[in-house]
Amino acid sequence: MKWCRFDSNGQGVYGIIEGETVTEVSGSPFDTYTKTDRTKALNAVKLLVPVIPATFYAAGINFREHVTEIAHQRGEEPNFPPAADVGYRANNALAAQGEPIIVPSDATEVLQYEGELVVVIGKKCKRVSEAEALDYVFGYTIGNDVSERTWQHGDRTLWRGKNTDTFKPMGPWIVTDGIDPENCEVSISLNGKKLYQYNMSGAIFSARQFISRMSQYLTLYPGDVLWMGTDGAQENMKDGDVCDIAIEGIGVLSNPIQWEK
Amino acid sequence: MKWCRFDSNGQGVYGIIEGETVTEVSGSPFDTYTKTDRTKALNAVKLLVPVIPATFYAAGINFREHVTEIAHQRGEEPNFPPAADVGYRANNALAAQGEPIIVPSDATEVLQYEGELVVVIGKKCKRVSEAEALDYVFGYTIGNDVSERTWQHGDRTLWRGKNTDTFKPMGPWIVTDGIDPENCEVSISLNGKKLYQYNMSGAIFSARQFISRMSQYLTLYPGDVLWMGTDGAQENMKDGDVCDIAIEGIGVLSNPIQWEK
Repeated sequence: MKWCRFDSNGQGVYGIIEGETVTEVSGSPFDTYTKTDRTKALNAVKLLVPVIPATFYAAGINFREHVTEIAHQRGEEPNFPPAADVGYRANNALAAQGEPIIVPSDATEVLQYEGELVVVIGKKCKRVSEAEALDYVFGYTIGNDVSERTWQHGDRTLWRGKNTDTFKPMGPWIVTDGIDPENCEVSISLNGKKLYQYNMSGAIFSARQFISRMSQYLTLYPGDVLWMGTDGAQENMKDGDVCDIAIEGIGVLSNPIQWEK
Repeated sequence: MKWCRFDSNGQGVYGIIEGETVTEVSGSPFDTYTKTDRTKALNAVKLLVPVIPATFYAAGINFREHVTEIAHQRGEEPNFPPAADVGYRANNALAAQGEPIIVPSDATEVLQYEGELVVVIGKKCKRVSEAEALDYVFGYTIGNDVSERTWQHGDRTLWRGKNTDTFKPMGPWIVTDGIDPENCEVSISLNGKKLYQYNMSGAIFSARQFISRMSQYLTLYPGDVLWMGTDGAQENMKDGDVCDIAIEGIGVLSNPIQWEK
């Protein structure tokens, strides 16, 4: 199934996408829901962020080439993570499909995309094995972990480098079937030109490893999200650029850059 | 006013505390609400965490003596934060008044309290000055930023060192009036013995400085919380201990330690 959230008369509601049609549901796929008889054309609805997580997890550094690239930019040796120690992002920064990434005027030019697979938790989960971890997944969506590198490396925390408003586009929808989180292609384009493509098989730690390890200490809840990290080097984005993250079987998350004057 | 959340037939509801009585409201103090005619004795209700934040902010290191103490434990020179760069904690870890802090059996003995003033945001807030920042505050509560120091310093992130389930007791309620976040006394007791007391006037950055700086880049929402950090050295807690954090004008947050076998 393909699930979205959209604006219905100023309210955020969940919908089921079939072909080019969205059927509104009452309730939530993370609890109970019933289909309504209200349908709309997919291209006629304003898509919202497909889920607002209770906790917003991010793998952070999880691909060898990305770690190496960031280290070289800083003149350091790469330091690969020894364990699946998860990090966090913040809900204020979420932005939906098509919404602009609004960059504060005092940001530096080192504003970069990170195209990522996003795992959406479907069932409450504590102390699960790696073998059973994916049974607790509801589905998958796409995230762009937009990063202002000067702030990311200069501040004591990732607060504005990663979590400035609109720096976390997520969507366009959640796909529940047919995605292998350990073997799917992620590609990143800027202004229609493909800049990088990688496969999730290159991740240092897989979704099952993260979920199992996290769940030894914490409870994962329906609607929590886990962003899986990105691979490769990134390029800078500038005012007016459009960044597309495509994942096979899910779709394309597309957002323009709007630099504040 | 004094606001709480409590269990009403398995549902979390908001209540207004007057003396020893709680009046249930429908709705939320962060949106709209109406008082019901249902009242209960305060000591007869099961208090819940007083608010579930959309984003859970934490000042982290924000007192000179605490920074110095942690640095000395690590054999390093203290490094005071140059700016009010906020960090994060996670909702899974929240625990209510009286609920046990459950410590995984593989934790080390360096399990410590951090008694903190918690600022609760009341109004949506973007790009506000320090002078007006406190106008966006709903009220104040108490937090215990329980920390397993081995994990805190050994892991790549603070995920289990700070955010293991139940490691973030918050409560018992929110007080909206009469608290000066720049001049109130916080005291920490273990098994009834007072171990430390400090005044919020010793904070490196005040609530108004945090809120103003944060709001230049991000939107604060009603119900978001900001934990202000703690002062002093901490002692270890062991199985069966009871940790009380008291803040004048608010009350006492009390939680027992329960170490898993």
